[in-house]
Amino acid sequence: MAIARGYAATDASKPLAPFTFERREPRDDDVVIDIKYCGVCHSDIHQARNEWGNSTFPMVPGHEIVGIVRAVGSKVTRFKIGDRVGVGCFVDSCTTCAARDLDLEQYLPGLVPTYNGVEADGKTPTQGGYSDHIVVKEGYVLSIPENLPLDAAAPLLCAGITLYSPLRHWKAGPGKKVAIVGMGGLGHMGVKLAHAMGAEVTVLSQTLSKKEDGLKLGADHYHATNDPATFTALAGSFDLIICTVAAEIDWNAYLNLLKVDGDLVLVGIPENPVPVHAFSLVPARRSISGSMIGSIKETQEMLDFCGEHGIVSEIETIAMDQINAAYERVIRSDVRYRFVIDMESIKA
Amino acid sequence: MAIARGYAATDASKPLAPFTFERREPRDDDVVIDIKYCGVCHSDIHQARNEWGNSTFPMVPGHEIVGIVRAVGSKVTRFKIGDRVGVGCFVDSCTTCAARDLDLEQYLPGLVPTYNGVEADGKTPTQGGYSDHIVVKEGYVLSIPENLPLDAAAPLLCAGITLYSPLRHWKAGPGKKVAIVGMGGLGHMGVKLAHAMGAEVTVLSQTLSKKEDGLKLGADHYHATNDPATFTALAGSFDLIICTVAAEIDWNAYLNLLKVDGDLVLVGIPENPVPVHAFSLVPARRSISGSMIGSIKETQEMLDFCGEHGIVSEIETIAMDQINAAYERVIRSDVRYRFVIDMESIKA
Repeated sequence: MAIARGYAATDASKPLAPFTFERREPRDDDVVIDIKYCGVCHSDIHQARNEWGNSTFPMVPGHEIVGIVRAVGSKVTRFKIGDRVGVGCFVDSCTTCAARDLDLEQYLPGLVPTYNGVEADGKTPTQGGYSDHIVVKEGYVLSIPENLPLDAAAPLLCAGITLYSPLRHWKAGPGKKVAIVGMGGLGHMGVKLAHAMGAEVTVLSQTLSKKEDGLKLGADHYHATNDPATFTALAGSFDLIICTVAAEIDWNAYLNLLKVDGDLVLVGIPENPVPVHAFSLVPARRSISGSMIGSIKETQEMLDFCGEHGIVSEIETIAMDQINAAYERVIRSDVRYRFVIDMESIKA
Repeated sequence: MAIARGYAATDASKPLAPFTFERREPRDDDVVIDIKYCGVCHSDIHQARNEWGNSTFPMVPGHEIVGIVRAVGSKVTRFKIGDRVGVGCFVDSCTTCAARDLDLEQYLPGLVPTYNGVEADGKTPTQGGYSDHIVVKEGYVLSIPENLPLDAAAPLLCAGITLYSPLRHWKAGPGKKVAIVGMGGLGHMGVKLAHAMGAEVTVLSQTLSKKEDGLKLGADHYHATNDPATFTALAGSFDLIICTVAAEIDWNAYLNLLKVDGDLVLVGIPENPVPVHAFSLVPARRSISGSMIGSIKETQEMLDFCGEHGIVSEIETIAMDQINAAYERVIRSDVRYRFVIDMESIKA
């Protein structure tokens, strides 16, 4: 066992605070990672505050982890000390069921989340990346391309793959018109990735306040959703709309912006159900779907794609002890576009 | 011009009554059809009673039309006097736009519904199949396979294609588990068609009252949705669920019955929006979609498929003057499984 230093929520109503805990003794197939940076995902806040009702405490959040390999188990073949690596939203999964071969492990029972979960033994709590190091099975460790800065690469591990997977699955590419709803941590990654895939990209954001950024990051068009004219002008326009916002917006209004056979894909999860009218779907064979992160194989593919295209997140770096203030700013959408914790700040 | 005898709704609150009206003089590309049978679709009732808010009166309903060719225009090449033909939900469409080539004309502007619409001239009202004859452009006339009885083939023109199209689009076939929600006019066609395509078919009906019929028509399994155990036993079971009911049921409960990547396809349209929870979609990349009838090309393909497999609707034949009583029985789901009007009754 090794002692880890981190920050934890000790219950849903308290701010995060310094916390020491034990990481397991590395097994044969484990990689020990010296964490350099960890991104701050909105789902960290949902879980630290038990807003999804499934939280266990104490909880060390963080699933956008990058760092340097500090040690490897005797059977590890793909990584060596000093490698630049990442860990995303899960650290284990069902390895025996048939569906494992389909590279869809993120959707299967047996998934072990990086934090707020329990390991395959059914009892040991997992603890995330707001900490100085982590021990992870080799099969769940990703390689970070050499040309990407580690700090700005951290958000690729969740925000990046959350957008990359649906863009690939619903075939964003040349000749396709793709809209990204919401210009935040997820949305700005969607703009960069869809643009790099060759799609014609439109941002649909509440206001035009981030328009200049959006166009700079790769959007071809930028429209405000607080202007009703947007919804008449763009009716029937898009092949694919990816909705990154977790607010309860009127999905029917967005479905009407789709062409025949178009898809509205949710990657944000509103707290409450949203009324959907069959008339928004039936007369144009439209669909509303959901997508959640991506498989390990697809996450590595995404990282390699980002390496080729020089894509990282737009970030604001903070020290660990600024986390509670950062949470408040995330809630106010006051960040361009992702907070990343510099873990040197916890080791000092 | 020729005088047609039919039955019409003269306003939303009155029963249907005898009505005479003019059919156009056949043009070069028209087929004149002596109507033999017309199916009674639930959407006839919705429109005769202006329940969708878009009705114009007087209205002669009926879009499940079969009959015999009485005359053809000089440029008609595919039909001759005496041929067995059908007409479905539309009698014209946009013939110039690019999407026409995609065989998706049912989803495009320019569609001219068989009744309760206006012709391409933008003003002449269309009138449907509750009448002795109809004049239709050759391109919108279908061939009825010789081996199918005309009366029981009538419902294929709407109920048949409404189920055939999504079953094909979402790839029902060997190795696929398909559920049909609702065992009525649409649902019983879904059972027959999905079974003939080679899928493993489950009926999800409110009660088990039609179980014997369902198994006889091709279902492998039959479950009652008024039994909560159905929803726990079948969780994560289906590749495809086609929902034929227009009642506001809990779509989330049905979404939970889908496997990863499964689709819930709506072909019935509830009057009001239905709350959908993103948690029903996101954690398994599920979709909820809508589908509406099919293209002319696909409708002919469906009729040929039904000819090969000997598939027709289960029907109860009525005389034209029984239509108002039949409507009440449709609303009570008291028909196994489709009313078909024998048009001899109007010609006597």
